Amino acid sequence: IPPINRDYNTRCQCLKVESRIIPPDNLKSIKLVTEGAHCPETEIIAGLVTGEKVCLNPRSAWVKKLVHFVLEKQLNQQNALPKNQA
Amino acid sequence: IPPINRDYNTRCQCLKVESRIIPPDNLKSIKLVTEGAHCPETEIIAGLVTGEKVCLNPRSAWVKKLVHFVLEKQLNQQNALPKNQA
Repeated sequence: IPPINRDYNTRCQCLKVESRIIPPDNLKSIKLVTEGAHCPETEIIAGLVTGEKVCLNPRSAWVKKLVHFVLEKQLNQQNALPKNQA
Repeated sequence: IPPINRDYNTRCQCLKVESRIIPPDNLKSIKLVTEGAHCPETEIIAGLVTGEKVCLNPRSAWVKKLVHFVLEKQLNQQNALPKNQA
């Protein structure tokens, strides 16, 4: 598991990116951090159901697919769930 | 700005979703939280450059576009930046 930099306000958080594919079932959250003064690259940090956090390569096709999967999964729920949000 | 539930381990974090469009320049991060035992809906939480956090509607077309924008922005950097990652 690649390390995550704790000094995330002033530097890149991802020191290395995970190359192994994360199965969607293992995914709890996925965070996209835009590039900026603190870091020249967009960073993608996945939170796993185990509680671990791993950095993913934003240039990987499967990482983009994973993000789309989470978005589209919600879309599919649109007709399946009652609307309980404002 | 809609409130965010602090008890995020056992309940939905988003009590309301922001309907106003967030300009990409105001966006620092965007987090997708998959649904699960704690919450029946996928939640999308945007971190703004001001430090505020707002919940977005995962069913909104512009929210999906915003996620894609962050992903594709990185893609466009692929040829512009030297590779400095493992």
